[in-house]
Amino acid sequence: MKNALYAQSGGVTSVINASAYGVIKAAFNSKEIDNIFVAINGINGVFDEKLANMKHEDPDQIELLKFTPSSAFGSCRRKIKTEEEFKKIFEIFEKYEIRYFFYNGGNDSMDTANKVHQYAQKIGYDLKVIGVPKTVDNDLPETDHTPGFGSIAKYLSVSILEGTLDVKSMAADSTKVFILETMGRHAGWVAASTALAKRHESDGPHIILIPEVPFKKEKFFEKIQNTIAKYGYCSIAASEGIKYEDGSFVAARGYQDNFGNVQLGGIGSTLANMIKNELNIKTHYAVPDYLQRSGRHISSQVDINEAIRAGAMAVKYAIDGHSGYMVGIERIMNSPYLSTTKLIPLENVANETKLIPEEFISEDGMFVNEKFFEYALPLIEGEYYPPYLNGIPVYARLKLEIIKK
Amino acid sequence: MKNALYAQSGGVTSVINASAYGVIKAAFNSKEIDNIFVAINGINGVFDEKLANMKHEDPDQIELLKFTPSSAFGSCRRKIKTEEEFKKIFEIFEKYEIRYFFYNGGNDSMDTANKVHQYAQKIGYDLKVIGVPKTVDNDLPETDHTPGFGSIAKYLSVSILEGTLDVKSMAADSTKVFILETMGRHAGWVAASTALAKRHESDGPHIILIPEVPFKKEKFFEKIQNTIAKYGYCSIAASEGIKYEDGSFVAARGYQDNFGNVQLGGIGSTLANMIKNELNIKTHYAVPDYLQRSGRHISSQVDINEAIRAGAMAVKYAIDGHSGYMVGIERIMNSPYLSTTKLIPLENVANETKLIPEEFISEDGMFVNEKFFEYALPLIEGEYYPPYLNGIPVYARLKLEIIKK
Repeated sequence: MKNALYAQSGGVTSVINASAYGVIKAAFNSKEIDNIFVAINGINGVFDEKLANMKHEDPDQIELLKFTPSSAFGSCRRKIKTEEEFKKIFEIFEKYEIRYFFYNGGNDSMDTANKVHQYAQKIGYDLKVIGVPKTVDNDLPETDHTPGFGSIAKYLSVSILEGTLDVKSMAADSTKVFILETMGRHAGWVAASTALAKRHESDGPHIILIPEVPFKKEKFFEKIQNTIAKYGYCSIAASEGIKYEDGSFVAARGYQDNFGNVQLGGIGSTLANMIKNELNIKTHYAVPDYLQRSGRHISSQVDINEAIRAGAMAVKYAIDGHSGYMVGIERIMNSPYLSTTKLIPLENVANETKLIPEEFISEDGMFVNEKFFEYALPLIEGEYYPPYLNGIPVYARLKLEIIKK
Repeated sequence: MKNALYAQSGGVTSVINASAYGVIKAAFNSKEIDNIFVAINGINGVFDEKLANMKHEDPDQIELLKFTPSSAFGSCRRKIKTEEEFKKIFEIFEKYEIRYFFYNGGNDSMDTANKVHQYAQKIGYDLKVIGVPKTVDNDLPETDHTPGFGSIAKYLSVSILEGTLDVKSMAADSTKVFILETMGRHAGWVAASTALAKRHESDGPHIILIPEVPFKKEKFFEKIQNTIAKYGYCSIAASEGIKYEDGSFVAARGYQDNFGNVQLGGIGSTLANMIKNELNIKTHYAVPDYLQRSGRHISSQVDINEAIRAGAMAVKYAIDGHSGYMVGIERIMNSPYLSTTKLIPLENVANETKLIPEEFISEDGMFVNEKFFEYALPLIEGEYYPPYLNGIPVYARLKLEIIKK
């Protein structure tokens, strides 16, 4: 028997199950693979011996994976460190006759995949390991972008477009500033992507704060005041990970008022407190948190298609004999947008973080420029709505019967 | 000349412009109305003499109002109090030959509309005043529900469905509790509506906190722990306005840790701090803020249709000679869902707040029951997406040329 194992790891996206769909369908279609198993909760499912066989699932539910956000098989944050752990993994692999291993995740997950690949080589175990990229953070090196990014970009840019219409209509005699707090601890891709639905100067956002550019309060306040003078309102996207010049997180320091009281909170509330206290301007802030990365109801069609393709190509590459690579996305052209896949050595991806290049950032450091739009705008193209029944999206419900030990 | 004036007031919704569309199109179609003007920024547009004539707008942009969230003409929070203000209003009305006044808003706005109606009668000015209902809060009396509610319900119930899939996949070795903070200072309709996308017991939310039921920490903690024991995770919707038994707001008191440090914030962060500190469970919280009431990309078709109908019927009622009423919604039947409109005296609506009746609340006070589902589920039916171009929704851009004084 030649079986394949698939698992998901790290923070989720709204299209990671579309990659699962690609892997599962390609495995079903391959004569080289007898069974496609999934591990429950990432690599932990291997340690706990919690595997499920996809051939026991209802085919309609497999189809619904294309539309279902988050991690249908559960995720994990585990890093493999000890020789003991690797021994245990390969014990299970041998027991279940696993010859293909597909790990779907970000930087940390690719590190795990790489170590599994290396260990297989070391002990002479015939295993093909291919990583499937997944992260809303868009911070994996060597790939043009990552599945998950286009959809969070679409969710957030449409959200701030709508939220800005709200503050615009209230600004005459009430709230004038709206802040959207976005994910992005190290890289600013997610915050930057909020710009993409902006067609007109007056549309939001007007200011984008990213971790790549040190936060300077005076310049920030100046731009807020100039924007309000021009339009009557100001809309801001702020990455959770923005830092002062000394490298400390703005949110971690919180906001200290004149009486020395410190108010801790996320970056949204920290900036809102600053603006309210020092500029005396009524400010609202939104924190979409999980909603931004699981908002499948407004995912990008380009992103979903690429997520499925990445999963299916992982299977093809493995069957063709490759191992120790992540599937990367290579852009062919922008208009019409077209991409293909390529192989990137796992060791080049593992634990690396790709920041926004300076050439994408506006001169004042508080916005993105045309080059960023050229790069990112094609990634939010197209709508691919989930099916609805009685007004509610229909998402997959898998049985996930654990294979008896 | 017999002209009509339309204006929007109070907090916005994703379908208030659909009501504007109904008013404008019905006025265009009526031989009794020569011009349909809009006031910019609600009643303030009358004081500032900022009126625009809808016949100067591009018809395609008028059509786009159906799809455009927030207040396309600007809103306000002004309450009319003095005789001087009324004199000024009627000076302008006379100057622009206004014979029909349509005010689109919630409780406070209906109070303004009522006062304008009464003043017209007092001075013998021939004016028909009809209020068009609008509020996400769903707290207007005598109407079955209000336009705007179905769409915030759809936005939030789909959001917590998706957010719960996220915490479900992370729960095995990371975050186990997800909190969604919703609007609703006095009434819990908005928080309650998060239940509507729940098809299965394990779907979120598992706990709903509303202002109508006093917050009891011990019972709340107990339900969280029971839910985690059962499913591995727990998803909570909390209204911003929940109170302790003594009537004080939970969010206003903030969270006080064992060292006496008080952390202020919204209800989401307050509850998250409680859970993290006292139950030692990793917790995430989302605060959609403006996004929930302006999220037109996922509005309810039933809601949009009713918003348009309410606007158009306001014009019909006024032309038929009625004045001093708000358009109410009357439910005909649930399956298939069908409603019609009726007239409700403005004085019955002004400044009244309709709370969730006890018969809709679960026995433990922390959820809603079947009766609430029967009532609210039809209101989120159907999708009516905005048009998209290059992945971005196309929203109306009106010229709003101010009529020369």
